[in-house]
Amino acid sequence: TIADQNTELKIRELISSKYPSHGIIGEEYEQINTKAEFVWVIDPIDGTRSFIAGHKDFGTLIALLHNNEPVLGIINCPAHNERWVGIKDHQTTCNDNKVNTSSIQKIEDSYLFTSGQFFYEPFFKKGFEKIKEKSKYFRYGGDCYMYGMLASGLIDIVIEDTLKAHDYMALVNIIEGAGGKITDKFGKNVNIESDGSLVASCNPKIHQQLISIINS
Amino acid sequence: TIADQNTELKIRELISSKYPSHGIIGEEYEQINTKAEFVWVIDPIDGTRSFIAGHKDFGTLIALLHNNEPVLGIINCPAHNERWVGIKDHQTTCNDNKVNTSSIQKIEDSYLFTSGQFFYEPFFKKGFEKIKEKSKYFRYGGDCYMYGMLASGLIDIVIEDTLKAHDYMALVNIIEGAGGKITDKFGKNVNIESDGSLVASCNPKIHQQLISIINS
Repeated sequence: TIADQNTELKIRELISSKYPSHGIIGEEYEQINTKAEFVWVIDPIDGTRSFIAGHKDFGTLIALLHNNEPVLGIINCPAHNERWVGIKDHQTTCNDNKVNTSSIQKIEDSYLFTSGQFFYEPFFKKGFEKIKEKSKYFRYGGDCYMYGMLASGLIDIVIEDTLKAHDYMALVNIIEGAGGKITDKFGKNVNIESDGSLVASCNPKIHQQLISIINS
Repeated sequence: TIADQNTELKIRELISSKYPSHGIIGEEYEQINTKAEFVWVIDPIDGTRSFIAGHKDFGTLIALLHNNEPVLGIINCPAHNERWVGIKDHQTTCNDNKVNTSSIQKIEDSYLFTSGQFFYEPFFKKGFEKIKEKSKYFRYGGDCYMYGMLASGLIDIVIEDTLKAHDYMALVNIIEGAGGKITDKFGKNVNIESDGSLVASCNPKIHQQLISIINS
């Protein structure tokens, strides 16, 4: 949409004027300088379909990578008036208040969200279905707001597929800085070349269970 | 949940003290006097799973039936600060402002929501998938807030299945008083004994197309 394009253009201008040597990966325009020491990864409006309809779960995602490793992530949800900020080796905040993921230990106690999109491989879809059956509660939908809810300990698991780097890079520091874990479907850390699968959860113990189920 | 039970109890008390002869159908407690001239149908918290998690799309649904026909419907979404009121033969309002459904004429221009729940019969699921493919945008999730968005013209179609009377009776006057149409999957008006399928749309013309696709 025009709103996506204009927002991305504005963010790109702000970055380029202040940090001309930095690389930029966005949703709407071409990649710049992706081998630079610092690279920004931006999704001007994550949840464009929510934004268009007037639903509130959309937001802006901004990540900063240093030597390909995420060091900063922002989820800004203006319609909810909530902004999560994650910085490597710091505790995640929401509207400047420190937040923690939940400490549940069993999938049977978990609250699972997914955007309800397509799962590419049958084994991943099957694993997702198994986890869904085991979970205590399940709900579709939520866009980037789901990951804020996860960082704040309101929900416990989010599983998605067919994502792009601009959809997930900003989430890494936010989830991990709140005590959670975020990997691809094989349990590997995500980077800008990951396959688009994403398993995000409230702590490493439950994460291990999720990855085991998906890959069993 | 306790919140559901307490809320329903409170609403039941308010009705019974003011209108002792009226019937009541709720989610949490037994049906009272369902053959009465006036019957209230209440869902204390529609979207309980959203409510528990802290997502904002939950709400209270209240319908009033006169001789089995809906004459009043309310969707109250406190976390969004939005309340829709529909009265038979009157225009629907949201926060006291009149609202209208959208006037789109083609499924190709439509914005479709569903809660993402189970579809009972294969033909209904297949019909839903066909409509989803044709629609311009599609999104899962939204609880009763979806129907408010439909009444306000933000989205165009909502399709669900496996609902109970307390899930849908309040929606009838709200959707129809805004210019929309709401029926079961066969295109029949819904009543407290309907089968739980629900097709809600922005106007009769597009509704006819939806029912045709589902039943072809």
